[in-house]
Amino acid sequence: MSAGTLPLLETPALVLDRPKVQRNLARMRGKLAGLGVPLRPHVKTAKCIEVVRMALEDRPGPITVSTLKEAEQFFAHGLTDILYAVGIAPGKLDHVADLRRRGADVKILLDNVDAARAVAAKGEALGLRFPALIEIDSDGHRSGVKPGDAALTDIGRVLQAGKGAELRGVLTHAGDSYNCGDTAAIRAMAERERLAVVGCAGQLRAAGLPCPVVSVGSTPTATFAERLDGVTEVRTGVYMFFDLVMAGLGVCAVDDIAVSVLTSVIGHQRDKGWIITDAGWMALSRDRGTAAQTIDQGYGVVCDADGRVIDGLLVASTNQEHGILAYRGGSAPDWARFPVGAQLRVLPNHACATSAQHDRYHVVDGDSRVAATWPRFSGW
Amino acid sequence: MSAGTLPLLETPALVLDRPKVQRNLARMRGKLAGLGVPLRPHVKTAKCIEVVRMALEDRPGPITVSTLKEAEQFFAHGLTDILYAVGIAPGKLDHVADLRRRGADVKILLDNVDAARAVAAKGEALGLRFPALIEIDSDGHRSGVKPGDAALTDIGRVLQAGKGAELRGVLTHAGDSYNCGDTAAIRAMAERERLAVVGCAGQLRAAGLPCPVVSVGSTPTATFAERLDGVTEVRTGVYMFFDLVMAGLGVCAVDDIAVSVLTSVIGHQRDKGWIITDAGWMALSRDRGTAAQTIDQGYGVVCDADGRVIDGLLVASTNQEHGILAYRGGSAPDWARFPVGAQLRVLPNHACATSAQHDRYHVVDGDSRVAATWPRFSGW
Repeated sequence: MSAGTLPLLETPALVLDRPKVQRNLARMRGKLAGLGVPLRPHVKTAKCIEVVRMALEDRPGPITVSTLKEAEQFFAHGLTDILYAVGIAPGKLDHVADLRRRGADVKILLDNVDAARAVAAKGEALGLRFPALIEIDSDGHRSGVKPGDAALTDIGRVLQAGKGAELRGVLTHAGDSYNCGDTAAIRAMAERERLAVVGCAGQLRAAGLPCPVVSVGSTPTATFAERLDGVTEVRTGVYMFFDLVMAGLGVCAVDDIAVSVLTSVIGHQRDKGWIITDAGWMALSRDRGTAAQTIDQGYGVVCDADGRVIDGLLVASTNQEHGILAYRGGSAPDWARFPVGAQLRVLPNHACATSAQHDRYHVVDGDSRVAATWPRFSGW
Repeated sequence: MSAGTLPLLETPALVLDRPKVQRNLARMRGKLAGLGVPLRPHVKTAKCIEVVRMALEDRPGPITVSTLKEAEQFFAHGLTDILYAVGIAPGKLDHVADLRRRGADVKILLDNVDAARAVAAKGEALGLRFPALIEIDSDGHRSGVKPGDAALTDIGRVLQAGKGAELRGVLTHAGDSYNCGDTAAIRAMAERERLAVVGCAGQLRAAGLPCPVVSVGSTPTATFAERLDGVTEVRTGVYMFFDLVMAGLGVCAVDDIAVSVLTSVIGHQRDKGWIITDAGWMALSRDRGTAAQTIDQGYGVVCDADGRVIDGLLVASTNQEHGILAYRGGSAPDWARFPVGAQLRVLPNHACATSAQHDRYHVVDGDSRVAATWPRFSGW
């Protein structure tokens, strides 16, 4: 044990396995290259310039963001081609305008005529043209105009009517792919996602409106898509790290999960078969995304300090700063293997949620030496 | 609308109603004064010096912390009487020692002989004496020595044997009070909590060991305790803000909840009765603590921008940066009341989890004028 190794970190701490990230990035890059469509990585999972630079192979974009804070942070690092993929609240338009004036090419998203009118009016008032995409609801999951709805053309016309906005295209996110029962269902969902958005692009063009961008995205559908004809870009984020939800869907293997939480054993409740640790829901997040899957992984799968999965050992429950580990099925641990002070690592249900609880990544290259510490940000 | 009002905040944003905090603080203070026992406020909910100063009425302590980061941050503001109420990992003892040498009187917690030995040995090696409390398991909820277990005396003897540690007392947290079905059950739990820890103090004293501190704590049990004979201090944290879990338990009224998340409407799915907002689980947390209660409040109860509850409107589901609002039972919203751009506030299931997603409180005095912005911290 030397300075700069995991055992010297104060726990809980977030660990990132760089070779796994590189492997995950390369796989998605290869997949989309095979289909001939460029990737616009979503930075909402990583929120870290070093990770995003790897995803972009050091190009200055393009990226997808879920907050204007992400836009600000990555723009500060020189990334300018930014798509803000959450429906715009009119109260944020001054901020978007400010970013655009400073040189950040921030595109916005909306799914209704009222928002389009607000954007067009604000742009006219500020003397600039907001590039806007229209969100399409390809799966009934949350936002967006339904394919075939005449509102799509109305929104496009409002955007194109004056000098305050510009219709840039259509976008969808097949978020319901997270609920698919098997990979065949994800494959079908990918085609449904493609057809929805390509059809809407056709509807706009038939009405004489422009639609240069046709954007789809979710890690599951991107992984299993068989064709992307008519699509101009793909957005994915969690593929960089992967997690137990993705593994449960068959999108990755558990061994592909690149992020974990280092924790220390602080006690035992031997009559119950419990190992108590210092990583509770504050360090792991409250996400229970595997609860609805075939295999419920509790609050996470437990590994040894080197990241090797300990078969059957889960974070069974959590308090704010306590984790309770127990074997699936209730068998007693080999207590000698888990003394007070021993360090373990926990693979998360949801990489976005767990990473968000931490302000830095401790980067390892497959061993326990900390090769780098990369800051990450949170908030809005 | 002027600068410094809620409508000008970029959403999502955390709002703190100061008069409600003051009322909540005064009620707990009055309750414990009536029982003649001092309060050691737990700072893990607020993580904000301004709130904790109000809780302490500007005295320099005592406080309870759940992380050494909390100890560092509050010590930097002059608070020195600090109890770190999570079982110590031996890897943190150098940090505790460093805090103690700098003048922070940090007390630690443990519940097993191995940890006691590690603490005693480390103290001897460093030439200082760690004051340690022994955790008691009063409710089977997580950590602690069970009442009547002979290990208690063994741990006490290990701590007292050399010059590296000092037995300071016993501590319990009736965390299972969060699962009580009614206030009568909480009242019974409070007495069980008291008896467990007072009995253990007696066991130590009967063995000739010191036990000056007898510490209990949880907001539900402190609220309903009828007697605290033999107890020397009470620890509570969430009482400062309260939340829907506490309201569901009958510990507070919904109107007592002092913290909320300001959000903006970004769209609608009218066929489903959905209002889409920009506060998803990242802003609200993934906490679903009311799911197991009589009334499941989804991801939170929706209020208007002034904080008045809108009857029956809930955050029904969330994505990372999207909230989906719907009426309980599925009735359609009065759409004119929720136009794109409208601001709403969401009361959280769990104040600790929701506050942790934000880096500041926007403080209001019962209206929509932002009277102050108070920073809060996160992490370890």
